Amino acid sequence: MALIVQKYGGTSVGSIERIRAVAERVKRWRDRGHQLVVVVSAMSGETDRLLNLAKQIQPCPDPRELDVLLSTGEQVTIALLSMALAACGCPARSYTGAQVHILTDNVHNKARIRDIDAARVRADLDAGRVVVIAGFQGVNEQGDITTLGRGGSDTSAVAIAAALKADECQIYTDVDGVYTTDPRIEPRARKLDRITFEEMLEMASLGSKVLQIRSVEFAGKYRVPLRVLSSFDEGEGTLITFDEDNPVENAKISGIAFNRDEAKLTVLGVPDQPGVAYQILGPIAEANIEVDMIVQNVAPDGQTTDFTFTVHRNDYPQALAILRKTANCLGAREVTGDATIVKISLVGVGMRSHAGIASRMFAALAKEGINIRMISTSEIKISVVVDEKYLELGVRALHAAFGLDRPS
Amino acid sequence: MALIVQKYGGTSVGSIERIRAVAERVKRWRDRGHQLVVVVSAMSGETDRLLNLAKQIQPCPDPRELDVLLSTGEQVTIALLSMALAACGCPARSYTGAQVHILTDNVHNKARIRDIDAARVRADLDAGRVVVIAGFQGVNEQGDITTLGRGGSDTSAVAIAAALKADECQIYTDVDGVYTTDPRIEPRARKLDRITFEEMLEMASLGSKVLQIRSVEFAGKYRVPLRVLSSFDEGEGTLITFDEDNPVENAKISGIAFNRDEAKLTVLGVPDQPGVAYQILGPIAEANIEVDMIVQNVAPDGQTTDFTFTVHRNDYPQALAILRKTANCLGAREVTGDATIVKISLVGVGMRSHAGIASRMFAALAKEGINIRMISTSEIKISVVVDEKYLELGVRALHAAFGLDRPS
Repeated sequence: MALIVQKYGGTSVGSIERIRAVAERVKRWRDRGHQLVVVVSAMSGETDRLLNLAKQIQPCPDPRELDVLLSTGEQVTIALLSMALAACGCPARSYTGAQVHILTDNVHNKARIRDIDAARVRADLDAGRVVVIAGFQGVNEQGDITTLGRGGSDTSAVAIAAALKADECQIYTDVDGVYTTDPRIEPRARKLDRITFEEMLEMASLGSKVLQIRSVEFAGKYRVPLRVLSSFDEGEGTLITFDEDNPVENAKISGIAFNRDEAKLTVLGVPDQPGVAYQILGPIAEANIEVDMIVQNVAPDGQTTDFTFTVHRNDYPQALAILRKTANCLGAREVTGDATIVKISLVGVGMRSHAGIASRMFAALAKEGINIRMISTSEIKISVVVDEKYLELGVRALHAAFGLDRPS
Repeated sequence: MALIVQKYGGTSVGSIERIRAVAERVKRWRDRGHQLVVVVSAMSGETDRLLNLAKQIQPCPDPRELDVLLSTGEQVTIALLSMALAACGCPARSYTGAQVHILTDNVHNKARIRDIDAARVRADLDAGRVVVIAGFQGVNEQGDITTLGRGGSDTSAVAIAAALKADECQIYTDVDGVYTTDPRIEPRARKLDRITFEEMLEMASLGSKVLQIRSVEFAGKYRVPLRVLSSFDEGEGTLITFDEDNPVENAKISGIAFNRDEAKLTVLGVPDQPGVAYQILGPIAEANIEVDMIVQNVAPDGQTTDFTFTVHRNDYPQALAILRKTANCLGAREVTGDATIVKISLVGVGMRSHAGIASRMFAALAKEGINIRMISTSEIKISVVVDEKYLELGVRALHAAFGLDRPS
């Protein structure tokens, strides 16, 4: 008998029919002798409906009141799912975030979980009930309702699994697992049976939006075994494991992530002196623009250097304007930019011990005539920036070069 | 400066436009220097929408989970109203029933309020904020959400007013006050400036559905001055006062109530002996049928008597079947019944000291040729049962006979 926390997102509980299907799935797990805690999101469309009501009143609604409003979405789902469970002969009890004391900080709309009181949940489980908990929401020390921000239900599920020391936290979505890359780009993309937390973090932050990144961090930190599955069909999904569980001797590459939303900016001929990077990025940060890749090469003439970084494409015009001002003050030669680029990243823990991977990657791209505009590496990831027209070709070339279409 | 509790029902907060209008009304009161607590219902249609979702899952939804579901309706309204108040420059803070500890018993869907913790509300009021509280809902000792049943927001408002020792509890509805009778029956019906609690109770229980009867009882018990007003236009509404505030020397009749939903049943020739009333009504009560009027006259022959009572028209067939069985056991002569009757009642504290009122009432009905089938009286009320075809004629005749169209 295991203690399992399951999380169902908005699409999985998007209608009465879907809620009934979730209830039947939960019942099947319980019938196998497991204890079940189910965390749910608002029915799909509900959060947007509520947000739209609020925006009719205030363009920027009061954050505290917005949380009071939005938290009703999950509250509706927990009640309906508990009824559906009862209707199929599975005793259940629902709780809001406040009722199981999912204590958060005070940052309305983006709160972080601090603590969970698991006693009440345990008592229900021991009494043979399924416990249904509203995701996405908590309560601060003053008793005010808080929400964790969009996608926060994943984090709720992981936090609850950690507090209960659950055997597994299962995240049900509309995909059946984590893929080697986006199947819409490379039809031969293959579902992974396992992926490490670190790889998942790199995949998630690079645009594979299967899991909310914060929930993966949380699961890694509290060592909660996490599994991504489809709520629409049966299957084992993808298990997210700890690094040491996997032999890293083989040159394992897990997948290829990409991001179409970036733009790059370059300052040419900046004086090569201390503090220059801060002078360039300081004003960008002050404008609340997030910077992703940063590349600075050695100064070829020992006098001046070139400095490049990428931002979200939406921030490109503003970043360019700021950069032009800064370049002027610094006496830089020129500012250039390009919003028609993409980033492609190779992710895998195998990279740590196998130096040949980068050269294999560059060779595969060169073979297709794809020019690399920027390179940046981390322990388990190599990212390159290329012209956006090469996205599909680049992803497919790398997918083939590393044999990702064949089971490892 | 007064402390005022205002309650707005579902129609008054039925759209974003209406919520804005409520916010502006609240602001006007606050601008006059008053402290305001606002209790709101779910937006009109919302409770039915939620109920319909539940019924798609379970025909008789689990009561605990139904409360979790339905309580979201008011939670949406408190958030939106607080935003609307902030948007018109009126600092506000919302609370669910649980957040201000509206403690109730355990009877889900029909809970009764036991206690309210007013400390948090007071702190907000003292800080200059308007406090917005979800009506209709509370929390039991286990921390489970409870609801008070339909119309319970009135009771919430009165209970909060009592706990805060408010100067006045204002109930905003879609009518502009309490009328001498239903204006749809008698166009000359006149709005009353004042009515006593006892009169209001008699009016409410007799079918004038302006206020939930439980809230009137509550207000009377805790001596909360209650006022009924329209949320659609300005006006003083009707103040519900304590008996001793009014001089009762004048033969004051406040209004004429009526009820079309009754049916009468009679057992003829019952042995006139102790316990007979219990033997007749016991089986009716066991079937959960509520009995309204009960009339038993003296036994003319000293041997047998006739026993008559009224029930809701929906319960008539069942009550008739039960009564036939009972009559058989008792050896009664005959059972008769009539579902085409109405009850008309004259209500007023003036009745206590003025004996002539009953005869004036009977004279007015006789003049129109209306035959009286049953009579029952209380301290401040005389009710008669007549054929349903006489409803309009009877109400108008009494309205004129007691000069109710003229200001008192």
